[in-house]
Amino acid sequence: MSEIIKIRRRILQENDHKASQLREQFKNEGTLVVDLVSSPGSGKTTLLEKTIQHFSERLDCAVLVGDVATELDANRLQAAGAPAHQIVTGGACHLDAHLVAAGLEQANFDEVDMLFLENVGNLVCPTSYDLGEDFKVVLLSAAEGEDKPAKYPAIFTRAAVCLITKSDLFPYVDFDLDVARQNIKAHNPNCRILELSAKTGAGMDAWCNLVKERLKVKRTVVV
Amino acid sequence: MSEIIKIRRRILQENDHKASQLREQFKNEGTLVVDLVSSPGSGKTTLLEKTIQHFSERLDCAVLVGDVATELDANRLQAAGAPAHQIVTGGACHLDAHLVAAGLEQANFDEVDMLFLENVGNLVCPTSYDLGEDFKVVLLSAAEGEDKPAKYPAIFTRAAVCLITKSDLFPYVDFDLDVARQNIKAHNPNCRILELSAKTGAGMDAWCNLVKERLKVKRTVVV
Repeated sequence: MSEIIKIRRRILQENDHKASQLREQFKNEGTLVVDLVSSPGSGKTTLLEKTIQHFSERLDCAVLVGDVATELDANRLQAAGAPAHQIVTGGACHLDAHLVAAGLEQANFDEVDMLFLENVGNLVCPTSYDLGEDFKVVLLSAAEGEDKPAKYPAIFTRAAVCLITKSDLFPYVDFDLDVARQNIKAHNPNCRILELSAKTGAGMDAWCNLVKERLKVKRTVVV
Repeated sequence: MSEIIKIRRRILQENDHKASQLREQFKNEGTLVVDLVSSPGSGKTTLLEKTIQHFSERLDCAVLVGDVATELDANRLQAAGAPAHQIVTGGACHLDAHLVAAGLEQANFDEVDMLFLENVGNLVCPTSYDLGEDFKVVLLSAAEGEDKPAKYPAIFTRAAVCLITKSDLFPYVDFDLDVARQNIKAHNPNCRILELSAKTGAGMDAWCNLVKERLKVKRTVVV
């Protein structure tokens, strides 16, 4: 098994090297980059559709979407009004920095204010891969249960923001919000936790303000 | 990358070899083995709690549960009345045949009629790993959306049964059941699709009858 560990370490080192280059590029362009990670069906694409619509008149957004198969999500996001490019991973269970770099080259986006990376739906594997992002956001849908931060601790430890999505389902599911918050904070006391429903719009302003604030801070620091 | 492909191939070959040994063992013991695969939060543990309770007076069940961290699920299943053993994978994103064999050795279950393998919550990585099971079941919760079979085709192609779970949420989510069925059948025309809610009990009899029928067929074939 040590052979596998060695190879895995080398893959992660190569990834980190490429991610550093991406981070430098994003810094020079003044683009805020957000990596969205969650289980399949937690609502990443719907969140992005509504986020893009929220910013449509004010800030330029673009999205790179990772999926094992299909271009469904990129099509939805283009329909929402943002340039979006699908990275079909062909079986790979996460985005890595090389896939992001190749996707950016193919997409050939104009310079944007915000670039969202919609990772492959997977709470485990995307965690270890730095994509040059400013921060990772983990989504946890109300339908998934409040125990997930305890069961998948790595991504909840690493994410700067946790969005508890599909809050419109709170009345219909057994989701204990206090326990969810405790479970997240146990792994990551500084994690910013927001509840929202992209469907009803509840909580969307707080999320969009958070992103806008981070962009402002990034540009202030750069200047 | 060819080095990685070679190693991956070797890992899968070693896995398949171990899985064949497990399958032979399960055949000799007359135990039906079912591998449950889904996203985190699709309801595998609740389904198993209710399945165990359904069979409690009639058939002996046991569960091996895979999770990246915590023993929460095994504790829940033991409380439901079945011997259950947790395999904490410590970061690995799927069960493999060696983990199952080691888990069985540690658990030291009495011979049972049915052994359920609750895989790590992940729609991608568990697909390639034969665990010696009779069949794989994929769970798709109504909250996740009907597009998931198109976006994660491998597991929907390989699973003999697809359970559309949390059917009690149908009135509150935008889930198109017909499109879900079409998306599953497009990849796997022979897949048996059942809708159920472990919470309300709707559809649970059909699922339990399916498992009982498969056990009967297995034992008839063995005899």
